Amino acid sequence: MSATVITGIGELVTNDPAREGLVGLVTDAAVVIEGSRVAWVGPAAEAPTADTHVDAGGRAVIPGFVDSHSHLVFAGDRAAEFAARMTGEPYTAGGIRTTVAATRAATDEQLTSHVARLVVEMRRQGTTTVEIKSGYGLSVVDEARSLAVARLFTDATTFLGAHVVPADTDPDAYVALVTGPMLDAAAPHARWIDVFCEEGAFSVDQARAVLAAGAAHGLRGRLHANQLTYGGGVLLAAELGLVAVDHCTFLSDADVEALSDSGTIATLLPGVEFSTRQPYPDARRLLDAGVRVALASDCNPGSCFTSSVPLCIALAVREMRMSPAEALHAATAVGAAALDRDDVGVLAPGKQADLVLLDAPSYLHLAYRPGVPLVTGVWQAGRPVL
Amino acid sequence: MSATVITGIGELVTNDPAREGLVGLVTDAAVVIEGSRVAWVGPAAEAPTADTHVDAGGRAVIPGFVDSHSHLVFAGDRAAEFAARMTGEPYTAGGIRTTVAATRAATDEQLTSHVARLVVEMRRQGTTTVEIKSGYGLSVVDEARSLAVARLFTDATTFLGAHVVPADTDPDAYVALVTGPMLDAAAPHARWIDVFCEEGAFSVDQARAVLAAGAAHGLRGRLHANQLTYGGGVLLAAELGLVAVDHCTFLSDADVEALSDSGTIATLLPGVEFSTRQPYPDARRLLDAGVRVALASDCNPGSCFTSSVPLCIALAVREMRMSPAEALHAATAVGAAALDRDDVGVLAPGKQADLVLLDAPSYLHLAYRPGVPLVTGVWQAGRPVL
Repeated sequence: MSATVITGIGELVTNDPAREGLVGLVTDAAVVIEGSRVAWVGPAAEAPTADTHVDAGGRAVIPGFVDSHSHLVFAGDRAAEFAARMTGEPYTAGGIRTTVAATRAATDEQLTSHVARLVVEMRRQGTTTVEIKSGYGLSVVDEARSLAVARLFTDATTFLGAHVVPADTDPDAYVALVTGPMLDAAAPHARWIDVFCEEGAFSVDQARAVLAAGAAHGLRGRLHANQLTYGGGVLLAAELGLVAVDHCTFLSDADVEALSDSGTIATLLPGVEFSTRQPYPDARRLLDAGVRVALASDCNPGSCFTSSVPLCIALAVREMRMSPAEALHAATAVGAAALDRDDVGVLAPGKQADLVLLDAPSYLHLAYRPGVPLVTGVWQAGRPVL
Repeated sequence: MSATVITGIGELVTNDPAREGLVGLVTDAAVVIEGSRVAWVGPAAEAPTADTHVDAGGRAVIPGFVDSHSHLVFAGDRAAEFAARMTGEPYTAGGIRTTVAATRAATDEQLTSHVARLVVEMRRQGTTTVEIKSGYGLSVVDEARSLAVARLFTDATTFLGAHVVPADTDPDAYVALVTGPMLDAAAPHARWIDVFCEEGAFSVDQARAVLAAGAAHGLRGRLHANQLTYGGGVLLAAELGLVAVDHCTFLSDADVEALSDSGTIATLLPGVEFSTRQPYPDARRLLDAGVRVALASDCNPGSCFTSSVPLCIALAVREMRMSPAEALHAATAVGAAALDRDDVGVLAPGKQADLVLLDAPSYLHLAYRPGVPLVTGVWQAGRPVL
């Protein structure tokens, strides 16, 4: 098995709980990669030799980003809707139907090529693990093929038939479809099941029914909840002990307490609030209450078409008062936990060798230099891919 | 003279006032470049042939960004100060002195290499014209060498000896130095003169004196004004008929009226408000009053270390209620006007061939896809440089 040693790492973020501080910084560090795994981490002066040597030149290395929430399988463009929203139109869940029509009209090849383009774009920005949801098919055949396409790119696929009720469809009949034939067709391609629990989308009772049906097919649950209004989605997630509940913009004290008690991760998606001009979730309140907070992109053509985790980190620091360390940790180690992974998001012996080299001396630059493409090298499962 | 034709441009932003709309859009367009100039613009179907053919594949082409406000000549890093600010420390003009010490300690070669790195980084993000200020030397020798370094990269160099009064220096004595020996040494390398007119920096009377001295040496005036507090800087800029006054965050009604009457451009720098967590300037109020608004990065190590004009556009749309077209126009054509240039920022026959190819079908994506590095090709004075 060939080995690579990266030396000259000015600042290494390990996220290793065995090291000091939230992000387990090591300065003047080196990392050894063997095959797809990290074999050694430590001071550069003590680094073993290896077949291949890379000099980081004093720059920072961080774990690859784990983007635990994205909607990459779609066709069409909603730039005009975005521009209208920026001049005053409100964002509602209904715009999803625009993308559904375009997605149904696209061929498998078109969908695959579109996802490939976005996955490559994400990788150039440091994302090495991405969750991908269906949810723009909303028919048995279109949800199944959306997941089959997603499955080409990631193990973390999520069935989101319950994204919105399609136009001219009875809601109860649609839930029956989602929990019946659509789930049967989707389950072989999916690991997770998700529901958009929101006014204008699905109620708490409907969400409960969809998650139960998914569980019976071996799919683990996650939820979109409390994005646009207060509601019962977060309490449902905590009650069911879900790994993660996403958005969490409108939270009551009871919601926060329930998340703290259940250990359910709150995944915040500040790109959405940026792109819909909504108020940002209160990350400080959650962190101060002991809730674990993840950050993800929610990359989708409607409410947030950014694929940039670095932007999400900068927004988390600017708008949600997370420290740069909390934001980076949330976009790596906690993102991994939100996908029930412990082999990514951390750089320690035995973990997957997903590393990002920044053109910067410190990870602080991710927030200090917003918008600047700082990612200059990426290793994914040990292979240099940028 | 060799010619290049770019066809297949899905959407071309010309900023040509002879065309319709603020940004003079042409769809299904082509551009011919001859030497350093644009030779022809029109529908792809009517494009002449040329030695070299580039197919834009339906993507958008825009004029290169004109970043009319930057402070690239410096040494050192203030990431730790940024992180402290994000946890509650206020931003003041005093932090500039930290960078002054590092800049004075750097060699010419170090300063040059640092500027080169940032100029390349800017170009990768679509900036083809950049103004560069001195202002971290604050001694006769260090201001002169800062400008000599800046002059290697741009014609648009600005003497900003009046950036802050150095530590342990009498303000009146320092103004005498700036308007005397420092100006003598700086003027041969500079086209413009600038003053940071703000509480904690320089008063209106001091600014007036510095600009008058600069004018006597053939340097045209510009001002940093009304960034942190209300003050007389904007009225001074209007009274003197300056081309541009920059920041304009705290404006009285009289300030807005004066800018409208004088025709002085208000250059807004939303990256600063992002990175200092200050309120954003009210671009809508200015535009609705008929004031011309430019957007620039203000790239500097203290208040705003972004070099990303695309991020500034996204912030202008999200936070300052500019339309995507207004924001793009402000970062190209109006930025050029703020540097008294009419040969850049516009794509029309005879203009400099500074073009940016976006990996997107429309310029709207600059705001619709915040943080995503969309720039995939750059021509600068006719040469492909990315």
